[in-house]
Amino acid sequence: QIEFDATEHPHRRFNPLTGQWVLVSPHRAKRPWSGQNEALPETDSPSYDESCFLCAGNTRISGDKNPDYTETYVFNNDFAALMTDSPDAPASDDPLFVSQGARGLSRVICFSPDHSKTLPELGTDKIRAIINTWNEQIEELGQDYAWVQVFENKGAAMGCSQPHPHGQIWANSFLPNEIAIKDRHLKAHFDKHGSNLLLDYALRESDRKERTVVETEYWIAVVPYWAAWPFETMLMPKFKAARMSDLNDDQKNDLAVALKKLTSRYDNLFQCSFPYSMGWHYAPFVEQQNADYWQLHALFYPPLLRSATVKKFMVGYEMLAESQRDLTAEQAAQRLRDVSDVHYLEAR
Amino acid sequence: QIEFDATEHPHRRFNPLTGQWVLVSPHRAKRPWSGQNEALPETDSPSYDESCFLCAGNTRISGDKNPDYTETYVFNNDFAALMTDSPDAPASDDPLFVSQGARGLSRVICFSPDHSKTLPELGTDKIRAIINTWNEQIEELGQDYAWVQVFENKGAAMGCSQPHPHGQIWANSFLPNEIAIKDRHLKAHFDKHGSNLLLDYALRESDRKERTVVETEYWIAVVPYWAAWPFETMLMPKFKAARMSDLNDDQKNDLAVALKKLTSRYDNLFQCSFPYSMGWHYAPFVEQQNADYWQLHALFYPPLLRSATVKKFMVGYEMLAESQRDLTAEQAAQRLRDVSDVHYLEAR
Ligand SMILES: O=P(O)(O)O[C@H]1O[C@H](CO)[C@@H](O)[C@H](O)[C@H]1O
Ligand SMILES: O=P(O)(O)O[C@H]1O[C@H](CO)[C@@H](O)[C@H](O)[C@H]1O
Repeated sequence: QIEFDATEHPHRRFNPLTGQWVLVSPHRAKRPWSGQNEALPETDSPSYDESCFLCAGNTRISGDKNPDYTETYVFNNDFAALMTDSPDAPASDDPLFVSQGARGLSRVICFSPDHSKTLPELGTDKIRAIINTWNEQIEELGQDYAWVQVFENKGAAMGCSQPHPHGQIWANSFLPNEIAIKDRHLKAHFDKHGSNLLLDYALRESDRKERTVVETEYWIAVVPYWAAWPFETMLMPKFKAARMSDLNDDQKNDLAVALKKLTSRYDNLFQCSFPYSMGWHYAPFVEQQNADYWQLHALFYPPLLRSATVKKFMVGYEMLAESQRDLTAEQAAQRLRDVSDVHYLEAR
Repeated sequence: QIEFDATEHPHRRFNPLTGQWVLVSPHRAKRPWSGQNEALPETDSPSYDESCFLCAGNTRISGDKNPDYTETYVFNNDFAALMTDSPDAPASDDPLFVSQGARGLSRVICFSPDHSKTLPELGTDKIRAIINTWNEQIEELGQDYAWVQVFENKGAAMGCSQPHPHGQIWANSFLPNEIAIKDRHLKAHFDKHGSNLLLDYALRESDRKERTVVETEYWIAVVPYWAAWPFETMLMPKFKAARMSDLNDDQKNDLAVALKKLTSRYDNLFQCSFPYSMGWHYAPFVEQQNADYWQLHALFYPPLLRSATVKKFMVGYEMLAESQRDLTAEQAAQRLRDVSDVHYLEAR
């Protein structure tokens, strides 16, 4: 019997945050690709674009004029997926046709007035301003809503329809699926082992190092053992923090550094503006006791697999059966460690 | 208080097969789109292409030569995600680093020798040959494997890298996530209500008609009440059938008709070769008692939203929080009913 080699032999890994498995097929990275290529992200955009709805001083579709903002700027999404006052869906006791009311709101956050600068290209002071805005928005909306999803869709490949660097904030009157599932798993782990799963995990990864991509004084970013997307990462504090509001100034400053290094490594991997969806998970605004088992963390889901133009398709088998990946988490982390943490455009 | 209107007011719907919710935001269909456009699928390909690895008589990368097949042709995938004999991953009692052995194999099924004809463009006799091949493969591989996923990725937008119409068969030594989850939910429904969830559902939809896209003597295709993708459908028998092998000749012939009508409506919607991932779910090969609560059905997950080139992006909010859709299941079904069930190329 041959000995098991994770870089050679297909196997499954378990995600303790979701209870789902991922199929790892490392030998498959060798297959040729003759499928779809993504468009290369645009480079050399101007720092101000007069036709851009998000640039400072410009007028949006709604007719509102953006102020001459200098750091971040937040406004209500003109085409929000939720309304603050929609009526409740009628109750049904039929288990096959169950619906529920859903209220909320949706905001856009311009990362900076500079139309051309994505997150890794901003100075840490500007990134720090984004962190402050995330924190303020979460705290404000958390007064009224059970969940506030802060996220960024970066790049056309991730459905981003506005090149001006920006993120989104969707507040929900309910706990969305992914949060409800994570809440259940974090709680079960806490009840069974008496410890915080994500803090345990951050410290273990900081010891082991094999999946680490960026490590700073207070933060660690790893390709999780159970990652589904090729270069997926999770950014975690190495100390207890249920929410962003638990961070002190040093920890926030250090987070800006970690974010800049992580996203610079991404861009450096294929020397392009690396597309991804990223966002924050943390203790929802439901009951206080969840603060013990919850831990703040950011998730990065980038679609690219082989190059700036060839992405991983999560399609047939993945949609119908199980997520599948072509390189191990350790191999992906190694590739991200092998490139510089200084952005290639700044290193010139 | 305004009255609830499902075509106007955001709400959530519950998927009883997965225990997940979907956020429905029908008013959002009005937002403008300035994001990525998909490439238009190629039309007018020749019925034989000498550079195609799947055409009859041609030689594949492996060096094997395809026979002069006349209906379907099945061969082992040269770059399979699974191996029949990979060694077991070492056991771990650490709840944060759990892995598992995974064995299996992967085959390709050419739908017909005609390089240019996708499923809706084939005659029902040719579609019937595909059904027979699916059934034979599932029965054969079901002897050795717990799960056999039969699926098709159609179109470059769905990661298909070979234009010659074909599907795939992945056999697994384990129950993949989606099957394990569905098994749990179908069983719980059966235990609680004493009836088969999917058969109940098919009959209820056949009565209600509002989400029906195609209905034949034995089969019904609907946009499920809880659909996540804009034009997602589920094709179900209107009689008890745990597996494809339970179908008699009439029911298989009628399935060929239903498949042709459903996929023709898809192509007719935006007058293009409609991309999708589709596949079959049915009682896994684990224990016999699952036959009572399981029911055979096909799932179609097409990505298009607005036109042949604008798809729905399941990205930031969807990956981090919850699936979201821009039109109701009833609206999607209506749009698919509004077009002909005769393929636009055959209607000329
Ligand atoms: O096997 P193919 O067609 O080369 O590959 C396609 O289908 C597979 C199964 O859904 C996916 O894992 C791949 O990402 C996709 O590109
Ligand atoms: O709101 P945007 O940027 O127009 O839209 C993008 O992000 C949303 C939230 O993830 C998705 O629902 C859309 O499919 C995507 O195109």
